[in-house]
Amino acid sequence: MSGPIEFYCEFASPYGYLAATRIGRIAAKHERDVRYRPVLLGPIFKLTGAIPLAQMPLKGEYMARDVARFARLLGEPMGWPAGQPTNGLHAARAFYFLEPDDPAAAWALYMTLYRRYWVEGLAADAPEIVADVAASLGHDRAAILAGMAADATKDRTRAANDAAVEAGVFGSPFIIADGEPFWGADRLDQVDRWLAGGW
Amino acid sequence: MSGPIEFYCEFASPYGYLAATRIGRIAAKHERDVRYRPVLLGPIFKLTGAIPLAQMPLKGEYMARDVARFARLLGEPMGWPAGQPTNGLHAARAFYFLEPDDPAAAWALYMTLYRRYWVEGLAADAPEIVADVAASLGHDRAAILAGMAADATKDRTRAANDAAVEAGVFGSPFIIADGEPFWGADRLDQVDRWLAGGW
Repeated sequence: MSGPIEFYCEFASPYGYLAATRIGRIAAKHERDVRYRPVLLGPIFKLTGAIPLAQMPLKGEYMARDVARFARLLGEPMGWPAGQPTNGLHAARAFYFLEPDDPAAAWALYMTLYRRYWVEGLAADAPEIVADVAASLGHDRAAILAGMAADATKDRTRAANDAAVEAGVFGSPFIIADGEPFWGADRLDQVDRWLAGGW
Repeated sequence: MSGPIEFYCEFASPYGYLAATRIGRIAAKHERDVRYRPVLLGPIFKLTGAIPLAQMPLKGEYMARDVARFARLLGEPMGWPAGQPTNGLHAARAFYFLEPDDPAAAWALYMTLYRRYWVEGLAADAPEIVADVAASLGHDRAAILAGMAADATKDRTRAANDAAVEAGVFGSPFIIADGEPFWGADRLDQVDRWLAGGW
């Protein structure tokens, strides 16, 4: 098969961010496109009964250490924003507003927001912040603000989340390559090998 | 530092088993010993409020698929025993009975039980089964049975579990290398790099 790789990520997920910095290069290496799917894990965790790792005793502390160590290994600058767990709703809506016309621009905006949050600590938790960053990338600020607030955008964002649940997504990052599901930033090497022909 | 690597695993943990098949070789590559610490996650999960992955909606199914795929990648034959989640208490007690006098023999027995469970489905959930397998390795069957039942062994097994909690262990496998904690079979490549000098 040669369809796109599906990449699901939650804005507040540090492992989602780490994987987002790598997935494009891995896909390109195998001449594959990526279909980016920002998701909101809040509603998904309600369905699965999952508890965010960061909120579990012992695991939260370990996770912060693991993320920092993992990021250093990958050579990715990364902090631990004071706003954690942040709300990625507006970033996701901006993505799904732009995506129908220009998926690449939609991802470029989301990834810029993602990076500014995880590297600089700029929380994209208000539409105005998202619009400012979008404007810095050349988007029309007012159009982005209106787009995020439009019912059609809200519906698309919700539908994308529902479709993720349908596809079996329960965490971030989640990658589906030719129907094969992979969960976790630590599975990207396996995704790479899978795209090279599996094992 | 050049102290031993601490390796914690739970008998019912497929990722613990997968890591157990690799950790000895990784340590040997860096001329390090392994201090094996079988643990019982039941009491630890009670403290941390964790739910076994296999019991969570969606994640349980994913986990079975991920384990099988991971095992194939590593070239390790592996099944999914009908007895899951199994009880590793007697295997742990046999380990801590033998360990003070002969840590290598203790691990050889535990690892044989581990393999026979995860490859062949032989649950070590009764002292007699553990004693049979120990006898097949040359141990005195009656001595092993008496050793597992001894209060001193039960105390040592409990103390080892308490010490694991003290050390921050909350899952399986869990590796501590020169004070640095790593959780998960998917962190073994990182353990390998850490032992090579970190990053």
